[in-house]
Order: sequence, then structure tokens, then C-alpha cells
Amino acid sequence: MQILFYSPDNKPEPWLAGLAQTLPEASVQVWQHGMDTENVVPADYIVAWKPPAAMLAGHPRLKAVFNLGAGVDAILQLADALPPNVPVVRLDDAGMAVQMAEYVTYAILRHFRRFDDYELQARQQQWRFLKPNDKGDFSVGILGLGVLGSRIAEAVQHFGFPLRGWSRSRKDLPGIECFAGGDELEAFLRGTRILVCVLPLTAETTQILNRSTLEKLPKGAYLINVARGAHVAESDFLALIKSDHLAGATLDVFRNEPLPAQHPFWQEPRISITPHISALTLRDNSIGQIAEKIRALEQGKPIAGIVDLSKGY
Amino acid sequence: MQILFYSPDNKPEPWLAGLAQTLPEASVQVWQHGMDTENVVPADYIVAWKPPAAMLAGHPRLKAVFNLGAGVDAILQLADALPPNVPVVRLDDAGMAVQMAEYVTYAILRHFRRFDDYELQARQQQWRFLKPNDKGDFSVGILGLGVLGSRIAEAVQHFGFPLRGWSRSRKDLPGIECFAGGDELEAFLRGTRILVCVLPLTAETTQILNRSTLEKLPKGAYLINVARGAHVAESDFLALIKSDHLAGATLDVFRNEPLPAQHPFWQEPRISITPHISALTLRDNSIGQIAEKIRALEQGKPIAGIVDLSKGY
Repeated sequence: MQILFYSPDNKPEPWLAGLAQTLPEASVQVWQHGMDTENVVPADYIVAWKPPAAMLAGHPRLKAVFNLGAGVDAILQLADALPPNVPVVRLDDAGMAVQMAEYVTYAILRHFRRFDDYELQARQQQWRFLKPNDKGDFSVGILGLGVLGSRIAEAVQHFGFPLRGWSRSRKDLPGIECFAGGDELEAFLRGTRILVCVLPLTAETTQILNRSTLEKLPKGAYLINVARGAHVAESDFLALIKSDHLAGATLDVFRNEPLPAQHPFWQEPRISITPHISALTLRDNSIGQIAEKIRALEQGKPIAGIVDLSKGY
Repeated sequence: MQILFYSPDNKPEPWLAGLAQTLPEASVQVWQHGMDTENVVPADYIVAWKPPAAMLAGHPRLKAVFNLGAGVDAILQLADALPPNVPVVRLDDAGMAVQMAEYVTYAILRHFRRFDDYELQARQQQWRFLKPNDKGDFSVGILGLGVLGSRIAEAVQHFGFPLRGWSRSRKDLPGIECFAGGDELEAFLRGTRILVCVLPLTAETTQILNRSTLEKLPKGAYLINVARGAHVAESDFLALIKSDHLAGATLDVFRNEPLPAQHPFWQEPRISITPHISALTLRDNSIGQIAEKIRALEQGKPIAGIVDLSKGY
């Protein structure tokens, strides 16, 4: 069995060691930019994060492409380069869901409990009680109710925040007021104080957070984006912060990453910026899942996580 | 039925309105400093936070003293002024446990996920990935496993941190490695990376966090104190921060509150300071509990929350 591996961080060694240990029957080649295509061994499986189009060609017996990471948007941009009928497979979780839940819980608690304000005071050696927020007023609305959104919902429920969720197709989750489809997006937004975006990036969700949608949030709403920068129309969003319609945001993802040094987000103290660290793919967990799915495919068994190319996730 | 009320914040009105609504059969008097004792109506119940000794005398038919807040140390300092055989009653929770869980979860996630470091970077417009911590190395140890400690444990478990707890008398709680009594304190400390103090303040626990105990924590340990400032021997603690044995701390309580402007804690960036806000007594919840307990006492029924004066909590 032949595997072709690629990751843009140029640190393939630990992945190779892990795959060798977990799938000793496989021979693994690392794809490199500028490689002579004659030297690429035709692969049974491709395992890659943000693969270049060139690596997808020339594999007549390719059986599946595994995506490292939660979002498959980078791979789907290459849909034309993908051989027909070869499934793109995403990992079920790879330890990312709990990390996302940690990140979002932290950001919610920081804003709700006014820890940012207390920190500013402490830097000025001020001991002063601030009026607490009322949890009943802090409804958390989650955009996207897949594996990651559901795990975030659990964490938010644990602390008793009112909870609502929106997804493309209707879901029915315990303890969550569920909204679905374009028709119910406005009602979802109007009742959301803290908006958490964990949507897949597709043609339909690109710039879904624009002036028209963000204005429907109540005044003083707060945005947490852990999905993709392209979900947000950045200038619309910034204008709504400047006009005080939005109270602030915690953003882990941006249209251009790294966020350019001149980007106005850096200058706005109400925007908390992290460098796309909300959830990291955990290598061991990922390798275990990939090995399990490859074994199932080799035995002709069905696997979970096959991406629906028409939906884009 | 006569109630005597006192709170040091001098804002009795909302309490009086709440008591009038919930216990319409009661007549409520507010105790004030400098009051002529002849004007104090003998009370059946005292409802107070940090009561002055003077208000406890002159109530021959007193049936119980209710403490507003989680810690009863302030009332117990007045044990001599308390009429014999009159129970001191603390509230079961009054909405404080979930607040404590929020506070502690926030502080743990901030340290574990390095959000403090990321914030420093963002202020300098730096986009840089930092090596993540390994959750397996981040065992959380909770000192005190009562109502508050147990609720904190639940929140910590929700995110999958290794969890241990220590209490005076042995407890057996699911998913927590439990230690008890002075003999097992050292073993508890040696395996604790994040130490959370939520102990009652008694003669035995005063300065329980001193050089000898804090040194037993592994190098790089972190302290979160939401109990009482007097649990910490402040100069011992500060020396262990300066020597890098401790990585830092989040402190909500201090020996002297408000924390004096000249106090060295303000100058140490590794100490996060909040002004005793980890958990506020929620008025409506408290009034509901007090009314319920008074009705039970009037009917001669047993109630929960009677303080054991010999133990001090």
C-alpha cells in the first residue's frame, strides 16, 4: 500500500514515524514542491493538509484523500484536480472539539464575567467592583451544529447560558433552541448575544457575517469566530464595532493569515486576536483514525467522514 | 416574626423588598452602627453578612443566625457574642458554586492554553504560534471538596483535566483522586500542577499555603485562590513566584481587602488580581433559601446548612 503525504509546515518526520508504527504495511512518500512528477510513486491514499493541486494528479489507483484538520475548504478548492469518485475524508474530531470548546468557553467567560475590564483595572492597581452581567441576558448562539458546534454547545450548557443554534439542515439537540436554513437565520440572530461561528466554509457561508446579518444581532452583541476568516466581511464587521453596535470580538481566524501587520484589527482593543490556535490537529489521534479508516476501506467496509462535495462539508 | 438584617454595603433596600415579598409574615428591622440598643427590637432571626458583635446581643428568643455568603469565618470570629445553642446557618449555594466554577475554569484555561502569552503578543501585533501545553501534565488539585469544590471539580472534569482533591475528612467522589487529612496533604501537593484553594478559613487552614506546603508543588505549578486571603502566607508565596518555583497565580482574595495600593502583588505580572468577585451572593436565590429554612424551623423541621462551630464550617 502506497501513501503520499503532504503538510505545508514541512515537518513530516513525526507523521512518518507515527504512520510507520500504526500502518507498518504502508510505504509512505512525502510530496515536495518542485518534485519531478516521475519520482512520485502512484498512491493508494493521499494524507494531506492544504495539498497543492499538483500532488493530486497521476494516481490511477487512488482510493481516498484524507484531510488533516477540521475544515476541508482548502482541499475542495481543488475539486477539479481531484480524480472523480475518489472520496475526500475528514477526520471525525482528532481531539479538536474539546480544544474548540475550551477556546470558546474561555472567550465567553472572559466577556461575560468582565475579566478583560478587571485586567485593565489591575494594571492600574485599581480595586473596584464592576456591575456583573446577568446570565439570562447572555444567550449564546452557535452557527454550525456539527461535531465541533455540538461539543461547544455542551460546554456552554455546563455553565447554564441560554443556548441556541443554527444549521443548514434542521437538527434537534437537547437543551438547544434550534434554527435551520436561510429563513430562520434572522430569528436566530435577533436573539443571540454571543455569536459563535463554527461553520464550514462553502460558497453559501462565505461572508455570511456581513453588515446585513451582523446588524440583526442585538446591540452589544459579541462575536467569536473559530471557523474561517472568509466567513466575515471584515470591513462591515469593523464598522459595527466602531459604531458600538457590537461590543467586541474574539477572533482566531482571518481572511489573510498571518494577519498583516497593518491590519486595522490589531489597533482595536475590543478585538482579541489569536493566531489560528483554537484547535490543533492532534497527531496521534489523527493517525489512529486514518489507519482505522484505511483498514476499513481495504476490507470494503463503509467509513464515516466522507465529504459531500455538493454541500462542501 | 421579627428579623434583624445587616449588610456592610449599606444597601438594604432590595433585601427588604425581597424579604417582604417572600416572607410577608415577617417584620424586618435594619441594624445600623451607632443605633441606640433600646431601639433594637428583639429578633427571632438575624440575617447578616459580616455582622458587628453588638447586633448579636439582646435577642432572648433568637432562633437562628443566617450568614449571607459562602464563608462563615467572619461570623465565627464572634462566636463568644453568639447566644449559646443558636445555630449559625449558611446558605447551601445561593448561585455561588457555578460562579466559582466559571472563575476557576477561566483561570485554568487562560494559563493552560497560554491566552495570557497570546494577549501579550497581540498587543505587539505579533502573530506567532506558541508550543501548546499537554493536558496530561496539567493535573488540577482542589483543596476543599464541599459544595463549591465539588462544583469546580465538575467543570474541570468537563474539559478532561486530570483531577485530584483534598479534604479534611475523607470523601469519595467519582473521577477524582481523593486525599484526606494532614497525612496525605504532601502526596496531594506533589502531584498537583494547578492548585485551587476553596477551603473554609479555620484555625487549621490559616496560612495552610506557606513555604513548606507550596514548595511541595512541582516546579511550574500555578495557584488559584478563591477562598480567603489568610489561607496564603503572602511573603512565602511571593518568594516562590520570584524564584520561579511557581509559574504564577490568579488571586481573588487577600489578607487585607481592598488590596493596598503599595502591595507587591500589584507589581508582579505573573499574579492576576481580581477584587473578590469570584462569587457573589445572588439575592433572590438567597432570600428564597432563607425563607424556606425559616418556615422549616418554625414547623420544627430539620434544615441543612447548620455550621459546626467546633470545625468552623
